[in-house]
Amino acid sequence: MDQTRLPREVVYRECHDERAVWEAIKTLQVRGAPAIGIAAAYGVCLGIKSAPDDEQAFFQRLDEVASYLASSRPTAVNLFWALDRMRRRAETLRGQPLDLIRKALLEEVRAIHEEDRALCHAIGRWGESLIEDRSGILTHCNAGGLATAEYGTALAVIYEAVAKGKRVHVFADETRPLLQGARLTAWELKAHGIPVTLICDNMAAEVMKEGKVQAVIVGADRIAANGDTANKIGTYGLAILARYHRIPFYVAAPSSTFDLQLSHGGLIPIEQRDPREVTSPFGIPIAPEGIDVYNPAFDVTPAELITAIICEKGVIRPVNKETIAAILGR
Amino acid sequence: MDQTRLPREVVYRECHDERAVWEAIKTLQVRGAPAIGIAAAYGVCLGIKSAPDDEQAFFQRLDEVASYLASSRPTAVNLFWALDRMRRRAETLRGQPLDLIRKALLEEVRAIHEEDRALCHAIGRWGESLIEDRSGILTHCNAGGLATAEYGTALAVIYEAVAKGKRVHVFADETRPLLQGARLTAWELKAHGIPVTLICDNMAAEVMKEGKVQAVIVGADRIAANGDTANKIGTYGLAILARYHRIPFYVAAPSSTFDLQLSHGGLIPIEQRDPREVTSPFGIPIAPEGIDVYNPAFDVTPAELITAIICEKGVIRPVNKETIAAILGR
Repeated sequence: MDQTRLPREVVYRECHDERAVWEAIKTLQVRGAPAIGIAAAYGVCLGIKSAPDDEQAFFQRLDEVASYLASSRPTAVNLFWALDRMRRRAETLRGQPLDLIRKALLEEVRAIHEEDRALCHAIGRWGESLIEDRSGILTHCNAGGLATAEYGTALAVIYEAVAKGKRVHVFADETRPLLQGARLTAWELKAHGIPVTLICDNMAAEVMKEGKVQAVIVGADRIAANGDTANKIGTYGLAILARYHRIPFYVAAPSSTFDLQLSHGGLIPIEQRDPREVTSPFGIPIAPEGIDVYNPAFDVTPAELITAIICEKGVIRPVNKETIAAILGR
Repeated sequence: MDQTRLPREVVYRECHDERAVWEAIKTLQVRGAPAIGIAAAYGVCLGIKSAPDDEQAFFQRLDEVASYLASSRPTAVNLFWALDRMRRRAETLRGQPLDLIRKALLEEVRAIHEEDRALCHAIGRWGESLIEDRSGILTHCNAGGLATAEYGTALAVIYEAVAKGKRVHVFADETRPLLQGARLTAWELKAHGIPVTLICDNMAAEVMKEGKVQAVIVGADRIAANGDTANKIGTYGLAILARYHRIPFYVAAPSSTFDLQLSHGGLIPIEQRDPREVTSPFGIPIAPEGIDVYNPAFDVTPAELITAIICEKGVIRPVNKETIAAILGR
């Protein structure tokens, strides 16, 4: 589903090679950390369809395809995690017939896809215990079914709370520049019949001050070993506003989002995107020509501002290196 | 100048009656607290051109016109201040020939207009002392020449600092939903040759974290007796972010922006605007049809988050009831 066309049109695109998958990830037709991991893994299968029938050449091609797909976006770690998992699966089968390896890789990506569904449901179940009945919940960007195989991460918590009979009202930040909150989260929640109010990003503080928000829940693109969390630009500011208003701030993400190689969030590479996303939304110029623009796609929220991280293995609280290692078991 | 058309087109509109002025204020063709006060005062002169030649009927018409113009927007107090000043001037001339009163009122609005220019320059001179050389300055919405007779309030401080030879770099929040920062502030600063970088509202925290901002300066639409300040939605959140990053947060506004009748900011009426400003910028739908929207045009920043208020009479610091009364001399 081409998410750049939502909510005005529901358009499905077929990708027949890895280049089409790369393009779909780069242009945010597929987005959301878990979803781009799954898409890239499918991209590997497409890329090796035409690989040579010689083992060495096959593995070289596999490597090239995975490296190429990894170059689509730099911040979300699930992308690299899924590609590594595909590469490792192939390695274990070295020496086997190439058709068997191809088949095993297709099974591997289907497993990743299926596991993601299960992970999201587990995140929902762990997270819903943190939600009180009659809560206002603020979310940013889209960490819902459109960002994962199904159900979502931050939104899984909301879906599960509603399934348990809790009454919630969601405030969705529109999330400039690409408006994933307005286009995707509002659309997805409305389709699920969950009460949702759309606000501009700069209204979050006012909504909190008015007592309408009892929890903030967001997804994540990469979490460092100490809990510092990269997520859509604007998340860091929201965490500060939540702290000021004494509102709990939760991050919901599968364990594949943790990058324990990185000791802290300052080491997470942040993608800078095209200034035209800011100056010409929908091709309409809203700013003077040639104006200088700063357009980071993500920011990093320090662990100290995060009340808890919800992953499929449980709720990490407080958030620090030790509690993360304990829950992840690595 | 129809500011809704900037920066793509520079369109001037002539207003021949008070209805056209009301419409121009309501639709934000004229905006910025001081500028709408001046426009409304001119609207009074237009409205009484066709007033009856009988004194009682003349004053009744004057009253109707002023009340009508006052209904255009509820939050900025300069509107009511300018209209009251026009009414008071007329009252002092009761008994005089009506043509003389008409002439005196036109002189009064020209005086308001001229005084505003002088006030803005005074604000600039007081404020520039707070700006260090080589500063990054973040501003929100437009508190520049386009919001006043000339020069501006928040931007006057920047213009004056630059005139004094200080090197500054401005970060302009785009200011959703109506994008006054992108359309007006970026345009105005670029035209003055001042380095400016446009950001989305939700990027302010990241820019602060990166150490690029040494001061935040904004305008104001109404300031209560204790210093609580109503300004464009998003200002309150910015003030919290500035406090978190230990960055000074300044408000620049003429003394006509103070409403000493109101003991605190909770009493300031906040305008709610059309949801379509959020859901359909430029007529392009970006959100699901029928989605619920919250669209307050302003928020109130508590005095405790404001480092200083800069008005034409001096710098009020710290900000509280006593320091405000002392500087305003009332």
